[in-house]
Amino acid sequence: MQPPDRAGREAILRVHTRSVPLDPKVDLGALASSTPGMVGADLANVVNEAALLAARRNHERVNTSDLNDALERIVLGAERKVMLSEDDRRRTAYHEAGHAIVGMLTPGADPVRKVSIIPRGQALGVTFSAPDADRFNFEQHMLLAQIKVALGGRTAEELVFDDITTGAESDIQHLTQIARYMVGRWGMSPSVGPIAVIPIDGMGPFFPGSSETSEETQRLIDEEVRRIVERAHEEVTELVGTHRSNLDSLVAGLLEHETLNETAAYAAAGLPRNPAPASEETPSVV
Amino acid sequence: MQPPDRAGREAILRVHTRSVPLDPKVDLGALASSTPGMVGADLANVVNEAALLAARRNHERVNTSDLNDALERIVLGAERKVMLSEDDRRRTAYHEAGHAIVGMLTPGADPVRKVSIIPRGQALGVTFSAPDADRFNFEQHMLLAQIKVALGGRTAEELVFDDITTGAESDIQHLTQIARYMVGRWGMSPSVGPIAVIPIDGMGPFFPGSSETSEETQRLIDEEVRRIVERAHEEVTELVGTHRSNLDSLVAGLLEHETLNETAAYAAAGLPRNPAPASEETPSVV
Amino acid sequence: MQPPDRAGREAILRVHTRSVPLDPKVDLGALASSTPGMVGADLANVVNEAALLAARRNHERVNTSDLNDALERIVLGAERKVMLSEDDRRRTAYHEAGHAIVGMLTPGADPVRKVSIIPRGQALGVTFSAPDADRFNFEQHMLLAQIKVALGGRTAEELVFDDITTGAESDIQHLTQIARYMVGRWGMSPSVGPIAVIPIDGMGPFFPGSSETSEETQRLIDEEVRRIVERAHEEVTELVGTHRSNLDSLVAGLLEHETLNETAAYAAAGLPRNPAPASEETPSVV
Amino acid sequence: MQPPDRAGREAILRVHTRSVPLDPKVDLGALASSTPGMVGADLANVVNEAALLAARRNHERVNTSDLNDALERIVLGAERKVMLSEDDRRRTAYHEAGHAIVGMLTPGADPVRKVSIIPRGQALGVTFSAPDADRFNFEQHMLLAQIKVALGGRTAEELVFDDITTGAESDIQHLTQIARYMVGRWGMSPSVGPIAVIPIDGMGPFFPGSSETSEETQRLIDEEVRRIVERAHEEVTELVGTHRSNLDSLVAGLLEHETLNETAAYAAAGLPRNPAPASEETPSVV
Amino acid sequence: MQPPDRAGREAILRVHTRSVPLDPKVDLGALASSTPGMVGADLANVVNEAALLAARRNHERVNTSDLNDALERIVLGAERKVMLSEDDRRRTAYHEAGHAIVGMLTPGADPVRKVSIIPRGQALGVTFSAPDADRFNFEQHMLLAQIKVALGGRTAEELVFDDITTGAESDIQHLTQIARYMVGRWGMSPSVGPIAVIPIDGMGPFFPGSSETSEETQRLIDEEVRRIVERAHEEVTELVGTHRSNLDSLVAGLLEHETLNETAAYAAAGLPRNPAPASEETPSVV
Amino acid sequence: MQPPDRAGREAILRVHTRSVPLDPKVDLGALASSTPGMVGADLANVVNEAALLAARRNHERVNTSDLNDALERIVLGAERKVMLSEDDRRRTAYHEAGHAIVGMLTPGADPVRKVSIIPRGQALGVTFSAPDADRFNFEQHMLLAQIKVALGGRTAEELVFDDITTGAESDIQHLTQIARYMVGRWGMSPSVGPIAVIPIDGMGPFFPGSSETSEETQRLIDEEVRRIVERAHEEVTELVGTHRSNLDSLVAGLLEHETLNETAAYAAAGLPRNPAPASEETPSVV
Repeated sequence: MQPPDRAGREAILRVHTRSVPLDPKVDLGALASSTPGMVGADLANVVNEAALLAARRNHERVNTSDLNDALERIVLGAERKVMLSEDDRRRTAYHEAGHAIVGMLTPGADPVRKVSIIPRGQALGVTFSAPDADRFNFEQHMLLAQIKVALGGRTAEELVFDDITTGAESDIQHLTQIARYMVGRWGMSPSVGPIAVIPIDGMGPFFPGSSETSEETQRLIDEEVRRIVERAHEEVTELVGTHRSNLDSLVAGLLEHETLNETAAYAAAGLPRNPAPASEETPSVV
Repeated sequence: MQPPDRAGREAILRVHTRSVPLDPKVDLGALASSTPGMVGADLANVVNEAALLAARRNHERVNTSDLNDALERIVLGAERKVMLSEDDRRRTAYHEAGHAIVGMLTPGADPVRKVSIIPRGQALGVTFSAPDADRFNFEQHMLLAQIKVALGGRTAEELVFDDITTGAESDIQHLTQIARYMVGRWGMSPSVGPIAVIPIDGMGPFFPGSSETSEETQRLIDEEVRRIVERAHEEVTELVGTHRSNLDSLVAGLLEHETLNETAAYAAAGLPRNPAPASEETPSVV
Repeated sequence: MQPPDRAGREAILRVHTRSVPLDPKVDLGALASSTPGMVGADLANVVNEAALLAARRNHERVNTSDLNDALERIVLGAERKVMLSEDDRRRTAYHEAGHAIVGMLTPGADPVRKVSIIPRGQALGVTFSAPDADRFNFEQHMLLAQIKVALGGRTAEELVFDDITTGAESDIQHLTQIARYMVGRWGMSPSVGPIAVIPIDGMGPFFPGSSETSEETQRLIDEEVRRIVERAHEEVTELVGTHRSNLDSLVAGLLEHETLNETAAYAAAGLPRNPAPASEETPSVV
Repeated sequence: MQPPDRAGREAILRVHTRSVPLDPKVDLGALASSTPGMVGADLANVVNEAALLAARRNHERVNTSDLNDALERIVLGAERKVMLSEDDRRRTAYHEAGHAIVGMLTPGADPVRKVSIIPRGQALGVTFSAPDADRFNFEQHMLLAQIKVALGGRTAEELVFDDITTGAESDIQHLTQIARYMVGRWGMSPSVGPIAVIPIDGMGPFFPGSSETSEETQRLIDEEVRRIVERAHEEVTELVGTHRSNLDSLVAGLLEHETLNETAAYAAAGLPRNPAPASEETPSVV
Repeated sequence: MQPPDRAGREAILRVHTRSVPLDPKVDLGALASSTPGMVGADLANVVNEAALLAARRNHERVNTSDLNDALERIVLGAERKVMLSEDDRRRTAYHEAGHAIVGMLTPGADPVRKVSIIPRGQALGVTFSAPDADRFNFEQHMLLAQIKVALGGRTAEELVFDDITTGAESDIQHLTQIARYMVGRWGMSPSVGPIAVIPIDGMGPFFPGSSETSEETQRLIDEEVRRIVERAHEEVTELVGTHRSNLDSLVAGLLEHETLNETAAYAAAGLPRNPAPASEETPSVV
Repeated sequence: MQPPDRAGREAILRVHTRSVPLDPKVDLGALASSTPGMVGADLANVVNEAALLAARRNHERVNTSDLNDALERIVLGAERKVMLSEDDRRRTAYHEAGHAIVGMLTPGADPVRKVSIIPRGQALGVTFSAPDADRFNFEQHMLLAQIKVALGGRTAEELVFDDITTGAESDIQHLTQIARYMVGRWGMSPSVGPIAVIPIDGMGPFFPGSSETSEETQRLIDEEVRRIVERAHEEVTELVGTHRSNLDSLVAGLLEHETLNETAAYAAAGLPRNPAPASEETPSVV
């Protein structure tokens, strides 16, 4: 089942907020624009979390900041009180700033909504990007941009610390999967062509053909994945290297404020915001 | 169990419409001609859906448009209210028009019955083709035509947008499976010959031989599949390129009307309808 | 458990017909000769089906034609009322005639008992062959003859229509399995020798050795299977080509009569019946 | 659990015959010598079957022939009444005579106890060999002799009929398994050496090492198996060819008498009995 | 779920010690610093074990040494009374001293907290290292240091005894896994790049891509793992060789005292303690 | 759980013999020294079996010989009454003497405690070796000695009988597993290095890395295993060849006495006992 679009989300939010005392200034349409990809249960969670926050904060009515903070908790995880060493804070700041800088500079990447070095869930920091409007398909250059953003954290560490850490494990998983799907499902490798060569999970019986690939094809897939990621890595290394001063000033901002929202992050990095595509939807600030 | 033929379907429809107030103008024989491949349960669904639509529309009797709309819902999925950006609409229009143009121009392809850029189910648009009569076997050139039609959407995007998207995933799965079956089950690759070399799903114990193929044979299968798809892709690229004006005018029609039925689609594309094979059955318009 | 022989089948038929009013002209020995390979349950089915047919036909006693028609239903499936296009009928006729002609002309092939273009079960037509006596072992040339008969339908289509269809899928499965068993279980490939190299289904624990074959052996099996089938295909192409007039006249007979029994089929094809091996059993006409 | 030895079997037979009226001439020690490899349940079966036969034959006491016939039924299967064609009888006779001749002529092969062309169980004929004493280990030349005896039936058919049949399937399985175990478990291939390279069934968890062999080792196993079987086949072909007259006269005896016991078989073949190894046990005639 | 940090552990310890008579000199903050990686249940175990020890020792209140001894039992296992031969004691001493010396000399290795040749659990001796502060990510040179420390025991044995034993089995498993993760998950092999190429356990359905690697990629992984471990082995051999006198004097200390704590171990080895990274946390002595 | 050491075993024996009338001369400490590797249940078995033997022998108290005989039954299996041919006895004697001679002559092999050609359990003979003291680790030269002892039986047969038998199957399994673990788990192959390359049984989820080895690594493992075993085989062949007279005289002793204990076996072979390593434990005679 496909998630609801902006109008659908607004309608769902309207239902879930009926039983909640809502500050009249709250703009549910803006909130709907900030929640692409969410389904009914997610939106209900946001409203419940906001009601709890409002109660804890002794607000008589749930206001916009309660809703925005609740949304952030749901999407990014609750903040954790972990005492990091100065070394770990600095390394985390460069990692997140690396993601953010690449996201700000790469055409096709989603705008950066928030950068933070406050640990949340399993992660020591978070960089959150989101499109200006609901997205239905992904163009190849957007996927390459996602791979580059995922590489940004590690590449920044390489340039600044001359060593690499285990901390990029989930970034590496994420970008490998995108690259494999580009090659094996979405026909984006010229060597493989528009042919499905990697299996759909749990769809064996319904789509048997593609899981029976030869060793030679598997080698070709691996080669293409490596080619895509290596080229992206070179370009990201070049990009971050030539924007080292933007990286450093974003890191400085992060070490001072710990969390930067969209406007503050672009300002700290000294970079213009990604151009928004022509669209009738503009998201509210998270 | 093989599905019923036209006469069988008409008889089934007659049974299911007994308890429904039916407009006397309804031609159940024509409806039967429009439902090749459907079994009893499908036809019962069509009648029930039509009765619901008629009730919602305050028709005293179920008429032809109720039945046709019900049939469309069953086959294509219900329309969804999704607000697409102008970019997405245009890209979707070119994708669907690409399928349609290739279907209109390729000998052996089924006639195009409907083209639409109204999202339905998981898809942003739909191109629906159906043969003029029940089909029992598929000739090789019909299978190649199916592969080409599946490639048409993506190829049109390549030509017009100079980028490709994830949107062709199910097209790629579909055409890969046809090409693999051509090579591995239907003996249509000269290099492999009339030998079964890919396993039948869930038939391991009953047909063990063919699933024990060597790596070399698997490589041969992959090579042949790639050869078939690559040649088809070249021909489709050539075809769509030389009919760019037909493509553009079909897109214009789609952007204006969102849905074009058979007659309107061929007219908008400026192309003649596919020749019907000599057959005693001619389908009604869906 | 091995199926009963002719005498055993006659005894079984005698038991099952005790409770049925039987026309005294019925020759149960002849019926037993017509049912090689059947076990008790199959024979009981034949008798029950015959009793039902006799009832429907208002026969007071079950006669020979009831029994023969019942046998045919059990073996070949019930006839289906499907309206085929003239194209489909003609193609089906050539496909079945191809099987039949090759069966009539190839030493070691079983005599053709019936050819029909009336759809039954999943098939659009049927060619039925059976030996003149119970068979206990199969000589290599009989297996090659089975492969050739299986290729006959498709080869006829190739020669006449210059295109091939998906309709030969089950023929291809059948001939591939015979060729694989020849190579991997029956020691009939000189390159492999009298060695078991393909696993027995469901016998893993009891015969582990043969399922552990190397990639090189699997490649050899595939190569030998291809060699056997390719040579057979060449010979069948030659055979059908030089007997095109027999093929055409058999097709003419099929289009006119739809079903031809043994005598009629050989007559329509203008070919002599396969020589019967010296045997004490001669089957009745099915 | 290892089966009991001769003395153990005699003791078991004494227990099971306590409740049976036994002819005083019966020599249970001789019967024990004829049943190497049998366990308690097998011996109980023999005694029960003998009691049934004696009852059917109206013997007051179970005598030696009842016991011997019962033993034969247990070991070889009950005879089946199948009417074979003259061709099938002759082919079967050559097949069984081939096994027997090779068994009579090959050093290390067990003496031939019975040859028969009366179908039993799944088989059209039977050749039964047994050692003169219980055997605890098998020397390499005995295993090669077993492979040769297994090849004897098929090789005789090759020489006489110039065609081969599916009838050797179980012979081929049997000899392949012996050859694979020689190479992979018993260290009898110089190229592989005294190393375990094929897995023990159902012992994966307890003996994991040997099932993890590389493709190269699997290729080596296959090569060695093929080498062993091919050399054996050449030697058997030579052996049967130079003893064609012995083969023919044994076949003549079989066609006349259908079943030949040990003495009659060696006499019909015109060959001396295999030399008995020095042993305190000499088996009774089965 | 991530384990609690130092402050969290101190809070948990405070809860669990409420119902225990605690010596007022006990510093729970110091204990919290000594237990990085522990979760609530582990800390509860430590408190319970300490209470039991205090009871056995007739302490009126649980004091610091009860807590430290309890912590050691939980982390390292209870000591076992095994009478080792002098040979085994000496070999064990060199094995553990080898781990310890490499840990003391390798930048990036954790400080050595305790070395012992008293058997515990399955092991004949124990070398325990722990960082000065909670660690969140691992830099590549720390992972290489872990591999070297794991190789230290075996390398010392190689140098001193000129033979190797089965005793390094778990060291070898541990270092192989680190090296494989470096190559396949953490992007630390230049040949493989920042790509995930080994599967996540039990995550098949959620991360299918990476488990589908080709034989060529698997070969590359194995090659890189071998390269990393071989280079580490060479460096450790060099390192232990040039510090043989430190090794010998640490062994002498171990043979005399059996267990050496942090201070005693560095003193016995004649080596300075590893430099502590700038951190607000300094662990208490275990 | 690790088995108890000598002191632990003595304590366990003391518990289990409390309820048994024990001859005061019995030295439970000596018995404990003879039972390395046994756990509580094994020791309880020994005591129970000894009580049964004492009862059968009408001993008023369980004495040392009852306990030693009981221990032997538990370790080696009960003797079986099988009548072997003179050939089989002689071959068995050479097989066991081969194991024993190699065990007596190879540094690192455990002293031979008993040699016997009385069948026990599945085996026709038994050679039992045990160390002078509990062993905790195995040095590489001890593992090679185990491989050589396992090869000794077969090698003696090769030299004396010029043929090999299936009787070495379990020896071959045993030595293959040792060689594979040397290469794949204990880092004893220079080509593979200190890397874990064969999976731990049933530990897949906890140690996934090592089971994902490439074909090339599997080939390397097989090659190294073959190299180790082949060199050992050459050395054993040389060793047994140059000590043929010791072998022959040990065989003579075995054929005369059937079972030789430690002292008698070394005397019959004319060889000195293996040197005992310095140890505080000396085992009693079994």
